[in-house]
Amino acid sequence: MIDPQRYPRLSRISIPADLRTFPEDELPAIADELRAYLIEQVAQSGGHFGAGLGVIELTVALHWLFETPRDRLVWDVGHQTYPHKILTGRRDDIHTVKQAGGVAPFPKREESEYDTFGVGHSSTSISAALGMAIALQRMGDDRKVVAVIGDGAMTAGMAFEALNHGGGMEPEPNLLVVLNDNQMSISENVGALTQMLGRLTGSRTLNAIREGGKKLLGDKNKPAAKFVRRWEEHWKGMFVPSTLFEELGFHYTGPIDGHDLPALLGAMKTLKGLKGPQLLHVITTKGKGYGLAEGDQIGYHAVSPFDPAQGMVSKPGAKKPTYTDVFGDWLCDMAATDPRLFGITPAMREGSGLVRFSKEFPDRYFDVAIAEQHAVTLAAGMACEGAKPVCAIYSTFLQRGYDQLVHDVAIQNLDVLFAIDRGGVVGPDGATHAGNLDLSYLRCVPNMVVMAPADENECRQMLSTGHHYAGPAAVRYPRGTGPGVAVEPTLDTLPIGQAQLRRRGARIALLAFGATVPAAEVVGAELGLTVVNMRFVRPLDRTLVLELARTHEGFVTLEDNVVAGGAGSGVAELLNAEGVVLPVLHLGLPDEFQHHASREQLLSEAGLDADGIRRAVLARWPVIAAPTPHRAIG
Amino acid sequence: MIDPQRYPRLSRISIPADLRTFPEDELPAIADELRAYLIEQVAQSGGHFGAGLGVIELTVALHWLFETPRDRLVWDVGHQTYPHKILTGRRDDIHTVKQAGGVAPFPKREESEYDTFGVGHSSTSISAALGMAIALQRMGDDRKVVAVIGDGAMTAGMAFEALNHGGGMEPEPNLLVVLNDNQMSISENVGALTQMLGRLTGSRTLNAIREGGKKLLGDKNKPAAKFVRRWEEHWKGMFVPSTLFEELGFHYTGPIDGHDLPALLGAMKTLKGLKGPQLLHVITTKGKGYGLAEGDQIGYHAVSPFDPAQGMVSKPGAKKPTYTDVFGDWLCDMAATDPRLFGITPAMREGSGLVRFSKEFPDRYFDVAIAEQHAVTLAAGMACEGAKPVCAIYSTFLQRGYDQLVHDVAIQNLDVLFAIDRGGVVGPDGATHAGNLDLSYLRCVPNMVVMAPADENECRQMLSTGHHYAGPAAVRYPRGTGPGVAVEPTLDTLPIGQAQLRRRGARIALLAFGATVPAAEVVGAELGLTVVNMRFVRPLDRTLVLELARTHEGFVTLEDNVVAGGAGSGVAELLNAEGVVLPVLHLGLPDEFQHHASREQLLSEAGLDADGIRRAVLARWPVIAAPTPHRAIG
Repeated sequence: MIDPQRYPRLSRISIPADLRTFPEDELPAIADELRAYLIEQVAQSGGHFGAGLGVIELTVALHWLFETPRDRLVWDVGHQTYPHKILTGRRDDIHTVKQAGGVAPFPKREESEYDTFGVGHSSTSISAALGMAIALQRMGDDRKVVAVIGDGAMTAGMAFEALNHGGGMEPEPNLLVVLNDNQMSISENVGALTQMLGRLTGSRTLNAIREGGKKLLGDKNKPAAKFVRRWEEHWKGMFVPSTLFEELGFHYTGPIDGHDLPALLGAMKTLKGLKGPQLLHVITTKGKGYGLAEGDQIGYHAVSPFDPAQGMVSKPGAKKPTYTDVFGDWLCDMAATDPRLFGITPAMREGSGLVRFSKEFPDRYFDVAIAEQHAVTLAAGMACEGAKPVCAIYSTFLQRGYDQLVHDVAIQNLDVLFAIDRGGVVGPDGATHAGNLDLSYLRCVPNMVVMAPADENECRQMLSTGHHYAGPAAVRYPRGTGPGVAVEPTLDTLPIGQAQLRRRGARIALLAFGATVPAAEVVGAELGLTVVNMRFVRPLDRTLVLELARTHEGFVTLEDNVVAGGAGSGVAELLNAEGVVLPVLHLGLPDEFQHHASREQLLSEAGLDADGIRRAVLARWPVIAAPTPHRAIG
Repeated sequence: MIDPQRYPRLSRISIPADLRTFPEDELPAIADELRAYLIEQVAQSGGHFGAGLGVIELTVALHWLFETPRDRLVWDVGHQTYPHKILTGRRDDIHTVKQAGGVAPFPKREESEYDTFGVGHSSTSISAALGMAIALQRMGDDRKVVAVIGDGAMTAGMAFEALNHGGGMEPEPNLLVVLNDNQMSISENVGALTQMLGRLTGSRTLNAIREGGKKLLGDKNKPAAKFVRRWEEHWKGMFVPSTLFEELGFHYTGPIDGHDLPALLGAMKTLKGLKGPQLLHVITTKGKGYGLAEGDQIGYHAVSPFDPAQGMVSKPGAKKPTYTDVFGDWLCDMAATDPRLFGITPAMREGSGLVRFSKEFPDRYFDVAIAEQHAVTLAAGMACEGAKPVCAIYSTFLQRGYDQLVHDVAIQNLDVLFAIDRGGVVGPDGATHAGNLDLSYLRCVPNMVVMAPADENECRQMLSTGHHYAGPAAVRYPRGTGPGVAVEPTLDTLPIGQAQLRRRGARIALLAFGATVPAAEVVGAELGLTVVNMRFVRPLDRTLVLELARTHEGFVTLEDNVVAGGAGSGVAELLNAEGVVLPVLHLGLPDEFQHHASREQLLSEAGLDADGIRRAVLARWPVIAAPTPHRAIG
């Protein structure tokens, strides 16, 4: 429970209606308490940190000024919504964030009526809010709709699409977009838009003129508002360059210091009364109010539990390398031997493991901003000129480049390697970040080679294999660490479409893909079954599969992907194509969006740990439980 | 063969090197010949028409001025490239366009070294060209890269992503983007960008100032170019609002009359010498030079063969309605009964059948420009407020909204109906427009209901079913006409997940999805087999499938989707999940990107016509060829 001594105001605020009982002049004190409480809680629980600290004042201002949940508040990405969650009924549970059964790490409609739109991927908020605004307008409902979007998220094409639509519509939608400009995605933002925002922010003279113009023109919520606004824009156009947002039909206000509550409230009060598409440009600091986080915005984007007095301390001793580390090292090693290698990331330098590459090979490193579509087609263009681009994208975010993967890379059979991190179960970030679908949506694409490594060393071998293969290839590996196999420094390749027989047993063959191989090996050894590390989701090892079909009573396919259309489904298709009739048991992820929990817990719930696999095999083939000749001999 | 009398110059031009032997002052005459030849040829063959006529001068200028194919010319969308194809080795074959074995309707790398990037979907050109420019720059190669993109294509997010990246990079990429502004996609363009371009085009005074500024500043290819350009931009900013392109870091030139060859060449010569990202804004008229096409730009976007003297004549008599027509009528009928229905199209009003809806329900009709991502999330936002949006998107273009379908609609289980036209084999437009993957990429998505109608009336029933279902649903129907079943005016629904037993036969059950049902019925009747119209790709009719599995010796699944992960694969998964061991033969589209040919031809090649199905069934079960008891009785 929250301590009323330390948090005299916040302890009296369960929901925004409570907040709205406070007078305006107490809001800065409430913001201070909210910030202190957030630091205290996230230091305990871990979770997203810097982004929330940056929007404390904004969150307080929005919930105080707007009638949430009646008015609709749509947060983009959602890693900045811990303060929002604290003010909207989840104050006392925020320490459970990301844990199974605890508060979700992102807005989630099922969790709260204040979470108007579920999110996790960036740049959806303007589209969603515009949809809400239009629907409400058509129904004659006057409630307000506000989208809060970061400058990083604004670089994604879908945000532009939404601005273009919303700014060009008749009748005008009543929508306020708050651009939370902190110059950061998870890393520093890149691209022309960021530079433009920087110029806006820097030009204080222009802002003075803008503000002067506004005062001169008075309240824009008058009948003549439209005329006045047009006149104002014309007038402004004489002195200051219009912003991209104004060219897209949004009325621009700003920039405003997003940590100055009176200024924020002043601007918002005006905007709340205005009709039409409005954009409020707010400057904030990621990590605001916690010095260490302000000083290391990337490091404090998301944190493990830490002592607030001390800050995060990196644990001593050699850590087991993650798959991300394995990829990052491979990328540098291969780049050193092959000048044609280019590395591309859509704003995930840290997450995808490209920090070292960006330093060692800056002229071949491309952070394209949050722009998965462009990232993929950029790679296709590079490949046309003989380069060998490596596109590093999380599984869940590759969904956003799917058309480009099909249309620009696969149809043209271009030499692009996809390094797909966070494939399969991801865990605490919840359904929005899950990589449960990629084997299905990739396996149906002609020309693709799709690989899933069983361990770290194989991941490196597969990356080399994909790099040398002169067509589109994908290596899909899980979040975090693997079984801990030592990674050899060589750049050896694997034969395309060749599986690895790990263990020859009897009766049943376990055909395991990627991260399921270790557990399959455990069960195979226990029950005396054959175990195959399939390695290739496509092409499958036809020869081995057919040989094993002749010599076994049944197959079990295992994968950390949904069963529907997954790798195991491919095995069944192969057997059916060959007219081989054999019992097949498909083990994989369930046909549902998994809730947030640890990766291990979700794998266990899906029955993909050794216990689950053993249970499933014995349920289908109870006879195996009896000691087999193989085991008796052993 | 081309007639040298009528085309004295064009008949001497096989490739651009030939074109470049002509002096500049003959180019207008060459353009006239090219235009006349294009009209003559496309009137014979049919194909894309208006867009090509709009870029005659641009095409001549580009190939004359740049050293193609050494310099890289990237066309966006590609329906405007017939003139390009005529000038680049395909003059005498252009009449075969879209036919099997003939010239491809879009640029295709396999077809010509002048087709630097294959295309069909819009808005990829800047990304691809930027990739080429970067790769060439890094390799020390000084060849030029030019992207030609329409103003319609510029509304898609990925074009913005590419501008943002290209305009913000260091070192600056050497890239010329030609914005071909004709105010049209296939329909009229919409959105704020279009309005902005209109303002630019309209402001002749500003252009005069710009031009004056340029002359004043002289050649920008001097050592001081960067300083001069900055100074110029500052100076311009004092008088004219900067363009969106300049804010995104591109140096803007224009607008220029794209049919005025001397003006075009003048501007391009200057730009050819400049470094850094350049944007040339060219105004053209779709259908230019053929009065009927200029007057009806939508009607003449693509044509069937016609008499050039007379123009297109609509054939008399009642036409069989296409699935698109069935959808368009259903949308109006349902909208009349349900005020919550909103219709959304990403710039495909005509192609998706929303013309009538847009007229009858203008306040519930949303053309969001070429913006599939936004279209889907806009629908999600609307659904949050109790609306029942219908998102009409071609199968192949839905690939571009895949993440939004998963992340914004399906995870939240929102009430959005996807009306997916051009599912399965599409035909003459080639691999880029094929809808061969949708059942696979949709079937793996939890919460989705996916339907495929066997005929027109069922399509209407499924649309009503999806509309009434309070979660995400998709109806996926093929291009063109169906079997010709009369469409009832009712808005009846079908029970979710229930298949339709069309014929009870013996031994083998044909489980047919969507467009394959009629051919399956023919074969089923001939061979005395059971035939099921499966209707639902997900959820499958578990009860019926298991009952049939008990009473048959084998299943044949049939679908116009790739076999990999498709609907039939779902049937196999169901059997495997239930521990039912039964021979299954999967018939579907091949694991390759099909070439362009007629829909019938491609279905036949895939073995999905009655002949192919019969052959495949008998090859697997030769015993069926003998008269069965069932047939003997009949």
